[in-house]
Amino acid sequence: MLQNPPAQPGMREEEVDTPALILDLDAFEANLDSMAAILAPTGAKLRAHAKTHKSPVVALQQMKRGAVGQCTQKVAEAEALAWGGVPDILVSNEVVAPRKLARLAALSGISRVALCADHADAVGLIEQAAQAAGTRLSVLVEIDVGAGRCGVSPGPEAVALASRIAASRHLIFGGLQAYHGRAQHIRSPEARTAAITSAVDSTRRTVEQLRQQGLECGIVGGGGTGTFRHEASSGVFTEIQAGSYAFMDADYAANEDAPPFRQSLFLLTQVMSVPKPDLAVVDAGHKAAPTDSGFPQLWERPGLTYSGASDEHGNLRVEGGKRPKLGEKLRLVPGHCDPTIDRYDWFVGVRRGRVECLWPIAARGAMS
Amino acid sequence: MLQNPPAQPGMREEEVDTPALILDLDAFEANLDSMAAILAPTGAKLRAHAKTHKSPVVALQQMKRGAVGQCTQKVAEAEALAWGGVPDILVSNEVVAPRKLARLAALSGISRVALCADHADAVGLIEQAAQAAGTRLSVLVEIDVGAGRCGVSPGPEAVALASRIAASRHLIFGGLQAYHGRAQHIRSPEARTAAITSAVDSTRRTVEQLRQQGLECGIVGGGGTGTFRHEASSGVFTEIQAGSYAFMDADYAANEDAPPFRQSLFLLTQVMSVPKPDLAVVDAGHKAAPTDSGFPQLWERPGLTYSGASDEHGNLRVEGGKRPKLGEKLRLVPGHCDPTIDRYDWFVGVRRGRVECLWPIAARGAMS
Repeated sequence: MLQNPPAQPGMREEEVDTPALILDLDAFEANLDSMAAILAPTGAKLRAHAKTHKSPVVALQQMKRGAVGQCTQKVAEAEALAWGGVPDILVSNEVVAPRKLARLAALSGISRVALCADHADAVGLIEQAAQAAGTRLSVLVEIDVGAGRCGVSPGPEAVALASRIAASRHLIFGGLQAYHGRAQHIRSPEARTAAITSAVDSTRRTVEQLRQQGLECGIVGGGGTGTFRHEASSGVFTEIQAGSYAFMDADYAANEDAPPFRQSLFLLTQVMSVPKPDLAVVDAGHKAAPTDSGFPQLWERPGLTYSGASDEHGNLRVEGGKRPKLGEKLRLVPGHCDPTIDRYDWFVGVRRGRVECLWPIAARGAMS
Repeated sequence: MLQNPPAQPGMREEEVDTPALILDLDAFEANLDSMAAILAPTGAKLRAHAKTHKSPVVALQQMKRGAVGQCTQKVAEAEALAWGGVPDILVSNEVVAPRKLARLAALSGISRVALCADHADAVGLIEQAAQAAGTRLSVLVEIDVGAGRCGVSPGPEAVALASRIAASRHLIFGGLQAYHGRAQHIRSPEARTAAITSAVDSTRRTVEQLRQQGLECGIVGGGGTGTFRHEASSGVFTEIQAGSYAFMDADYAANEDAPPFRQSLFLLTQVMSVPKPDLAVVDAGHKAAPTDSGFPQLWERPGLTYSGASDEHGNLRVEGGKRPKLGEKLRLVPGHCDPTIDRYDWFVGVRRGRVECLWPIAARGAMS
């Protein structure tokens, strides 16, 4: 069931029902502008990752500032975007289920869609789906540039798979997917640079080997919020796939050289119990604020620490600071923005303390 | 947006779209029967916790087997249950937001509702909401019996708050909420028994002190899947609030004396990449399978270990076992059933390999 919006335009922030996802619109727009400004002098364009924001509204604002399209991880996310008017979508992930491939092929009637492959059998399945739908699908080869997850090895393996795609009647070889997920949160800038230098080198080598076989990469995509400046300035990557930059979170803020974006995403939570002098309990536990990348943090409340989560409760330890009052509402910085946004049906856009807009998170829960 | 059902009745399980929440109906019904049989000889009744199942369909099946009602943690969960025909609901939690209290009071027109308090100011707010709605609300005093979360101290503090409730014109003193959340997953049976013995003792003492003031406890509620046999046989607790027992998860299975229930809840996931001989990647990461209580585990697939999660990918390490094939579907046992169920819009009920039913998870995301 879709949850009711927790607010109405015109309300003061402290009137918003909790827990709620607050988007500080000034900070959010500044982040979108900053990314556009950083990428402008490079050869790379933004194809922002919608697995973070899950919202056609956000996607279209990114595209107004120059993003060439959107990435998703799931076909259901691609559907939500296409149905919301996003014209160019890359599923930056493998899809092997025939039912999902049929849905993606069907979507190509209203938006440009592409996807990734890392196995010859998957290429065969995509070809079948494209043929059945009477369309042609663009397929990128994913290479493993250090993440240790999906992808063929850079070099000859990638060339062989690309050749197979190019030889398939209903497929178009679309380029390379080369995302180094693991590098995004390496805390030390030196170690992160080393990881991406290696990823860029193996990507460059693969692009050249493909070219020698007459295979041009329309897209060379990768780069997240932690590393995108390296990929963008490499001369090899044509598209940057950052998503978190629009929102930020505690995990990215913990990088030694945190990315140059403002915290725009907050969880508004209410103190529901003050059982002890050194303890306040809020109504956001790990269902409201997933803890896969650590607990959320208090925003501008020194002396208060989010010290424990159960399903629907968060414990705030009071150390030196003032204990918040029963009923008081507080802003939390999510530990990890992607899964946190995916818990909510609405962004509550706030500017100067007032609710300005409500945006549906149309791809909330879109895992298929 | 509500997600489409991942299956249709009559399908074979391996045809179900992934990721999906599979409910093994034989095991699920056996669990409901077992709980009814265990509680029958005790003085305690089941008021199952709907924060686990989030579904009026499940609630009504529990009630058919003798459960007296349902618990929720949130007003929005109570709404979903009441709208789905559940006649008796206890919000086993504090509620202090006037808008939420107004919603709960409104609900009392169609279902019997009660809630908890641990502060005199909260009692005042509940009284105002009940008065405004022209109704009377039943309020339980929550006591902290060791969880270190919400609740007043057992004994005189609890008596004082109960007296205040009883003296409020639109409130009824409903009894005590005495749940020891932290004890549920103490691995050693001896240490768990000690924790609950102490919780039972302080609850018994408080019930007696209340009685001396003429305050009878209609409900003395508590007990989860890890400890309920202690509370049920105590002679003090009248209601057991277990929820996970219907489904089970890897965290409960890790208790040294695991509760006597079968695993009925599974995540169906598909192998989307087989990039290395010792690695298969599935389409269920920590968005599909929250990791607050550890990674999910493979069901009946020795030699395969779920070794890492990113947002939408799970890494399976192959050690000795056979690597699953590209496209193969596997069952995972969730690390923690409550937040996992809360990620999905549908239970896919399966019996002997066939989809028998689809049940909406009506309170999915109901956090307000």
